[in-house]
Amino acid sequence: MIVTVTLNAALDVTYHVPRLTAHATHRVSDVTARPGGKGLNVSRVLAALGHETVATGLAGGRTGEALREGMAAAAPGVTDALMTVRGETRRTVAVVDAASGDTTMFNEPGPLVGAEEWAAFLRRYAELLDGARAVALCGSLPPGLPVGAYAELVRAARTAGVYVLLDTSGEALRRGIAARPDAIKPNADELAQLTGLTEPLRASGEARRRGARAVVASAGPAGLLAVAEEGVWQAPVPERLEGNPTGAGDSAVAGLLSGLAEDLPWPDRLARAVALSAATVLAPAAGEFDHKAYERLLPLTEVTEGHKAA
Amino acid sequence: MIVTVTLNAALDVTYHVPRLTAHATHRVSDVTARPGGKGLNVSRVLAALGHETVATGLAGGRTGEALREGMAAAAPGVTDALMTVRGETRRTVAVVDAASGDTTMFNEPGPLVGAEEWAAFLRRYAELLDGARAVALCGSLPPGLPVGAYAELVRAARTAGVYVLLDTSGEALRRGIAARPDAIKPNADELAQLTGLTEPLRASGEARRRGARAVVASAGPAGLLAVAEEGVWQAPVPERLEGNPTGAGDSAVAGLLSGLAEDLPWPDRLARAVALSAATVLAPAAGEFDHKAYERLLPLTEVTEGHKAA
Repeated sequence: MIVTVTLNAALDVTYHVPRLTAHATHRVSDVTARPGGKGLNVSRVLAALGHETVATGLAGGRTGEALREGMAAAAPGVTDALMTVRGETRRTVAVVDAASGDTTMFNEPGPLVGAEEWAAFLRRYAELLDGARAVALCGSLPPGLPVGAYAELVRAARTAGVYVLLDTSGEALRRGIAARPDAIKPNADELAQLTGLTEPLRASGEARRRGARAVVASAGPAGLLAVAEEGVWQAPVPERLEGNPTGAGDSAVAGLLSGLAEDLPWPDRLARAVALSAATVLAPAAGEFDHKAYERLLPLTEVTEGHKAA
Repeated sequence: MIVTVTLNAALDVTYHVPRLTAHATHRVSDVTARPGGKGLNVSRVLAALGHETVATGLAGGRTGEALREGMAAAAPGVTDALMTVRGETRRTVAVVDAASGDTTMFNEPGPLVGAEEWAAFLRRYAELLDGARAVALCGSLPPGLPVGAYAELVRAARTAGVYVLLDTSGEALRRGIAARPDAIKPNADELAQLTGLTEPLRASGEARRRGARAVVASAGPAGLLAVAEEGVWQAPVPERLEGNPTGAGDSAVAGLLSGLAEDLPWPDRLARAVALSAATVLAPAAGEFDHKAYERLLPLTEVTEGHKAA
């Protein structure tokens, strides 16, 4: 069983407008809402791959209810173990401009989480670790949580002997990495921000020195670079993609963890992560993956040992 | 008792961002939500003036629940007679740009209302008219309602012998006016759009020929112009105002109807409408009015008979 943790889940709302003009009034022609949050996306992909997965984290208020209802409908294979908090789950609003196709995003900060709620979550989390093969810790922290929250979750997983992957950014990543997660999955920006280095192999090495046992760095079309104790591998995206990259990183995490759960070696995990990620870019709906594209791309994905600097 | 009707109520959400940039991602620093909808604003002001008022209209889904909860808290003197519909009440999102102070608005369309829901609302409305002194029909129509919906509500009020004021725009106003409401309260733009005329006195005359028994036209600092069977009056705003005009028109409607309910003559109703409207612009929170400013401005508001063209 694979556990995912989404501490700052969101209801992702999309507004369609004919043309976005700053400081004007817009009639929104079409409104859609779907459950968001990186850990929930990871669980959704894991369930689609046939893995048993439990999604935990925090959800509250009417938006939290809408999120959970949406999850039950959109991802029936995912076990909902979200903990209810008093604050209101956040929304993200993506305004899609029909004239240019561009998107303007507004991300609410999320619920203010109390200390006793966090303590209750830690108990819930410890129970879920019992029997888990791996856990993915995903996304930003809501207001009120200590910045070292992920470090605490990493330590608890390591104590329980559960493989732990951390996928976050900024200070939460900086603090979480020091607790020695089994893997991190930063994109190029996040890795550069963490280490101050822009060359991926050197930056990954630096991230490992700071505590990550393995680093899987994503760089768009360049695919994934894995730097682990066992070796260094690179897996470029097998073809040029046009599509929506939303959720591609979450699908990569699902690929890595599903491969781990099946005891696949690093190159196979990496190939799966790249193919799933690419199949997510190609899917018509943001954050889902195209199963046929995945099956087509998986055998085309080549993983090479070592790393050639660009 | 004064009834207000808000068929397309909204939860008005405000996002604060440091600077709005089209096609960028924004972290929203602060989120507030308050019940919106023109009829609800009218009822809130009427209740603050000590009038008995019932707010009806349509509300649905989780956003409808949040709206009603907010109403109960913010306007305890208003009787909630909103009818529950299956669709989801809309949100409006106002993005306030701290750099410029400007606001960018996104207005959702509102719930799709079914024919049987509309029929049920007409029954509820007929019950409320029994015992009402006046009714205000306010704002836009949600999707699914016939464009002649307001005409139907105007006719029912007239049949019941209840004074009916219509405050809407576009095709809903054009169709509603033909049913001969006792008054309409267009702003300069709405009046010009309705009649094709820009000179207020001539445009008001044309609106009366189309069916409105009285026209109270608002024109920002120029105040209100009333054109009725009984005469023509003009009431400019007594001083230059700096503030937020949101809700000023709704306060004017509340002023007119509270004066009517107290059997005040036209000039006194108009003075009250102008002073309330100005006190709304001066209030720190959008859509509320500053009681002290109202009491100060009321005796300063001069109403003159006749109309001088600008």
